[in-house]
Amino acid sequence: MSLGILGPSGTFSEAAALSHYPPEQNLVYADSIEQLFLMLQQGKVADILIPFENSSAGILRNSLTGLTKYPVMIKGEIIVAIEQHLMSAAQYELAEIELVVTQPAVLAQCEGYLKANLPGVRVEIAESTTKAAQMVRNESRRAAAIGPQQAAHNYGLMILASGIQQDNNCTRFLHLTNREEEITIGGNKISIIFDLKDRPGALYQALQVFAQRQLNLSKIESYPVKANRGYRFYIEVDIPNGDLAVQGWLTELENHSSAVIYLGNYDRYKEVSRC
Amino acid sequence: MSLGILGPSGTFSEAAALSHYPPEQNLVYADSIEQLFLMLQQGKVADILIPFENSSAGILRNSLTGLTKYPVMIKGEIIVAIEQHLMSAAQYELAEIELVVTQPAVLAQCEGYLKANLPGVRVEIAESTTKAAQMVRNESRRAAAIGPQQAAHNYGLMILASGIQQDNNCTRFLHLTNREEEITIGGNKISIIFDLKDRPGALYQALQVFAQRQLNLSKIESYPVKANRGYRFYIEVDIPNGDLAVQGWLTELENHSSAVIYLGNYDRYKEVSRC
Repeated sequence: MSLGILGPSGTFSEAAALSHYPPEQNLVYADSIEQLFLMLQQGKVADILIPFENSSAGILRNSLTGLTKYPVMIKGEIIVAIEQHLMSAAQYELAEIELVVTQPAVLAQCEGYLKANLPGVRVEIAESTTKAAQMVRNESRRAAAIGPQQAAHNYGLMILASGIQQDNNCTRFLHLTNREEEITIGGNKISIIFDLKDRPGALYQALQVFAQRQLNLSKIESYPVKANRGYRFYIEVDIPNGDLAVQGWLTELENHSSAVIYLGNYDRYKEVSRC
Repeated sequence: MSLGILGPSGTFSEAAALSHYPPEQNLVYADSIEQLFLMLQQGKVADILIPFENSSAGILRNSLTGLTKYPVMIKGEIIVAIEQHLMSAAQYELAEIELVVTQPAVLAQCEGYLKANLPGVRVEIAESTTKAAQMVRNESRRAAAIGPQQAAHNYGLMILASGIQQDNNCTRFLHLTNREEEITIGGNKISIIFDLKDRPGALYQALQVFAQRQLNLSKIESYPVKANRGYRFYIEVDIPNGDLAVQGWLTELENHSSAVIYLGNYDRYKEVSRC
């Protein structure tokens, strides 16, 4: 089986994949989240693993957009405690650093550290923490990247500081595959995206579909499709006892919504973590 | 009255403030969202206007964090259609540009344009679109900033491209003041943050407080406080008929939650916009 992940080697995606999948897994590296979705759609990989939600940065918009734009299905989730490191090509003092390179969601996780320890430093954006490490390697200015320890190892960088992320910093990854026609059931969670008109009672009526069945929503996020014209909702529903009547309540939800995307049924991540 | 906004002159925050408040308003400029909250807490301004939600970038985490961290109250909201421009110190061809400077939420609004028109360009982060324009002004490389037309005007930059944001790109601003002891009522919307344990039925029971009273939620976003240990919810509740019994249902919500923050009562933004 081939699994597409954010690459190149040294990303948190790789660490998550290596720790949770059999070693014979064939990892295929992509440059961006968008490219991962394209690789899956074009059949270049069987599955992809995308970063989805970080406790500091929230849900990644690119990942959320991909769930709507491409016909994918969620097979599982992994939650990983993320430790961020500041790394550079030489043993600089913090005060010497002219440039920090990182990825937008990682920047959100480390803003407090940067404000306190590198105030006013210039910050450049890379598509992944690994690319950030590569850029620092080839940079003429005194630059530091932020990313996982493995990136420092892969590119021969020195670790200047460790654990520079906000407290309890975790990232949730979603394991995706191409959508199947049939609604599969088995896991204890379901993800759905649906659209509602922005009118009184719309959300309440839609949520009644779940409330009437005593189904708990473990995640809900509304975001404007067009401001003042409607909202889109991403939700995760707990299926504690293997609710086999999904088709029934999906149809009911469709009566309330202009569009419903069923994203699949998978198991809640169970491992105890530091998060 | 003094109003703190993201500065310096030329930001979308300034454009929003100038178009919605009397011209005698004394605008005080801050460097960051965090600094705005501090200015308010320290009594340096009477009110602040913070960018809160963008249709491409979602809710700004720094703004959401501020609502929890500082004792503030929402007095109103403004929704502004945002047009982003690419600007530089000279009339460069797009292919000549070596560096793009912008602010994280603006980057999220313009990623599609950058991928299509400036693939592989280096991207640097500034704390505001105005700072981005300033940086480009003083940059030795061929650089372009992304921001509002006013920033180009203020810093004598040339507009290379206009309307480079994703479609229907709007930003919602919140007008905040220091929290009062008393729960004021008058507007047709209320914002609340509350914490729930991550257990079956928790969200359903909490939402019943609103459902029983036929109160519509026009916005809901859950985000992990500590992964696997609980969730925090930001919600906006429509108060169609001036519900005077807020204290009653707040107390009821407190019975379901480990923490409830009442963020105030204000009027939904009514003006027709392009969003």
